Amino acid sequence: MKRLLVAARANAEAFATCFRAELPEHEIVTALPSDGGAVAYAVVGRPEPGLLASIPGLELVLSLNAGVEHLLASGEVPPGVPIVRMVDPGLVEGMVEWVSAHVLAWHRNLFAYRDKQVERRWAPAAEKLARERTVTVLGAGALGGPVATMLASFGFRTRAWSRSPRTLPGIECFAGEGGLAEAAAGADILVNLLPSTAQTLNVVDAALLAQLAPGALLVNGGRGATMVDADVLTALDSGQLSAAALDVFRTEPLPADDPYWAREDVLVSPHVAAPTHVSTSVAVMAESVRAWERGETPANVVDPALGY
Amino acid sequence: MKRLLVAARANAEAFATCFRAELPEHEIVTALPSDGGAVAYAVVGRPEPGLLASIPGLELVLSLNAGVEHLLASGEVPPGVPIVRMVDPGLVEGMVEWVSAHVLAWHRNLFAYRDKQVERRWAPAAEKLARERTVTVLGAGALGGPVATMLASFGFRTRAWSRSPRTLPGIECFAGEGGLAEAAAGADILVNLLPSTAQTLNVVDAALLAQLAPGALLVNGGRGATMVDADVLTALDSGQLSAAALDVFRTEPLPADDPYWAREDVLVSPHVAAPTHVSTSVAVMAESVRAWERGETPANVVDPALGY
Ligand SMILES: NC(=O)c1ccc[n+]([C@@H]2O[C@H](COP(=O)([O-])OP(=O)(O)OC[C@H]3O[C@@H](n4cnc5c(N)ncnc54)[C@H](OP(=O)(O)O)[C@@H]3O)[C@@H](O)[C@H]2O)c1
Ligand SMILES: NC(=O)c1ccc[n+]([C@@H]2O[C@H](COP(=O)([O-])OP(=O)(O)OC[C@H]3O[C@@H](n4cnc5c(N)ncnc54)[C@H](OP(=O)(O)O)[C@@H]3O)[C@@H](O)[C@H]2O)c1
Repeated sequence: MKRLLVAARANAEAFATCFRAELPEHEIVTALPSDGGAVAYAVVGRPEPGLLASIPGLELVLSLNAGVEHLLASGEVPPGVPIVRMVDPGLVEGMVEWVSAHVLAWHRNLFAYRDKQVERRWAPAAEKLARERTVTVLGAGALGGPVATMLASFGFRTRAWSRSPRTLPGIECFAGEGGLAEAAAGADILVNLLPSTAQTLNVVDAALLAQLAPGALLVNGGRGATMVDADVLTALDSGQLSAAALDVFRTEPLPADDPYWAREDVLVSPHVAAPTHVSTSVAVMAESVRAWERGETPANVVDPALGY
Repeated sequence: MKRLLVAARANAEAFATCFRAELPEHEIVTALPSDGGAVAYAVVGRPEPGLLASIPGLELVLSLNAGVEHLLASGEVPPGVPIVRMVDPGLVEGMVEWVSAHVLAWHRNLFAYRDKQVERRWAPAAEKLARERTVTVLGAGALGGPVATMLASFGFRTRAWSRSPRTLPGIECFAGEGGLAEAAAGADILVNLLPSTAQTLNVVDAALLAQLAPGALLVNGGRGATMVDADVLTALDSGQLSAAALDVFRTEPLPADDPYWAREDVLVSPHVAAPTHVSTSVAVMAESVRAWERGETPANVVDPALGY
């Protein structure tokens, strides 16, 4: 019977209840016990700085998020303790829904018709079919892969870009720094689902945006640090981008004086693209614990050298 | 060599060019010839009243639209001349895109976040997964079937309702007047893709809307006459409906004084859900002509008794 600490900032009790059902042999706690005894597993989103380093006997960190750049910051997790990032059906489904919602809303002019409605104008636009547009997805992992596949199922000509070469049925795949410009060339829609690492910092910059078709849409559901905000704003001003749907930012919550808030051509959402759902994520984390106790390496352990 | 008249109100020349490529043995014209000779085939959207009745030697009417209620009005098409309604990949893809765009935009709160953005409010809402919501699609034909299938692929619990019993993988199917209330019971989203017939008139009324879950979404991409506007407005006022996305209306263009225009909870679009695309539709119509000339009944001939 080992201890598992749920240090989630939201829904801690709900997570704990589900863990008790999934791991009945374990002691599930929602605060660090005062007995000083070992806590083998820590379930964390964005933990208080120093919390993880202070846990006695920590064996495994179970991240509630897919993105773990904050956990890799030095001094957070004791060296040698593996971090398992969140890959679960709810997260995948949420991101597929959110990206599809923004891509289709732009593609089928939902906000443009809303503006016409305010003026009581009955004015059909020339509607394109998805098959007449190209989408490039940056990142072809747990989220980028299913997102690309869903967009392709609508008929979009779909491309994906990753670090290592990938194959996805029906998707044109590109890899590595050398493949980026080609992956983006002429695309009408750019979807960013990259993790935040030393390598992905500022990938979405003026040079990349210039590769897109004029009037393209940018959708960022990955991380704010992968995008150069000044270049995005310049591309919006010039019309190279016609719109941007942004869920993630360098500083969150987005500061009140940020220029994104006031723009008609930007849709700001408060990091809600793919929240972690208690209902789907606990089973996945419990399976990581069971794998660990069988002496196996759990799936989706973060590589600190790669940063994701 | 028979004659084919393209009487489309828009893109007539583009349609004619494609028909000449598809049916090189035929004479393709865009106006009724003055020689009084026979015109075997007429390609029409909403033709001038009386046009079809005046065509000598008319054998087959090829509708540019999926909905043909206006062509079935008495005196329009000479008795015994079959009408082929439009079923083509572009129409299906367009409707799948449009319905998915509205369902996902509502499901993932895109317009609600837009409103918060105007106030610079960073306020995450509790995001539901598609698998936590139920969608009912009225109509399970050329459009309703693929729409239901696409929504199910996002995880929505999906139902469909038709006149005759249907089977669609992954969809709970209901049929006939007796199945309607059960099909709609507790649904969070109601998608209407019914044709306009004597039987479907006013199907979406107060009684049907009362079956839905409180705060449901109504999406109408079928026909305006299938919906009782006063009941929709009452359901919006009471909160039984939280929103409606309406593409079709009893009177089109929607009159300037219609109450739908001014409502924040209604999205009006000008009958653009699934326009007929020259690029995909001509091949389908040409195939109907070839089937006819082989002595076969073309696919998708309208049944005047059923009205669709
Ligand atoms: N907004 C939200 O609510 C939300 C929710 C969840 C996740 N996210 C973000 O989404 C990110 C992706 O999540 P995921 O689960 O899909 O991660 P993942 O499975 O690790 O996939 C990451 C993808 O990015 C690619 N990549 C990484 N570094 C790269 C580089 N230098 N050049 C090119 N491609 C690179 C990877 O390439 P390989 O295939 O070669 O490894 C992989 O395809 C997370 O890190 C997080 O930041 C946001
Ligand atoms: N907004 C736009 O841009 C746009 C574009 C294209 C089409 N539309 C509209 O969409 C409609 C549907 O097109 P479609 O190609 O899918 O037609 P369809 O293939 O004929 O399908 C019609 C569906 O409605 C069902 N239905 C008909 N009468 C019914 C009744 N009395 N009770 C229950 N179900 C009934 C049919 O049942 P069965 O399966 O038993 O036959 C069938 O499933 C068109 O008629 C048109 O009005 C709108």
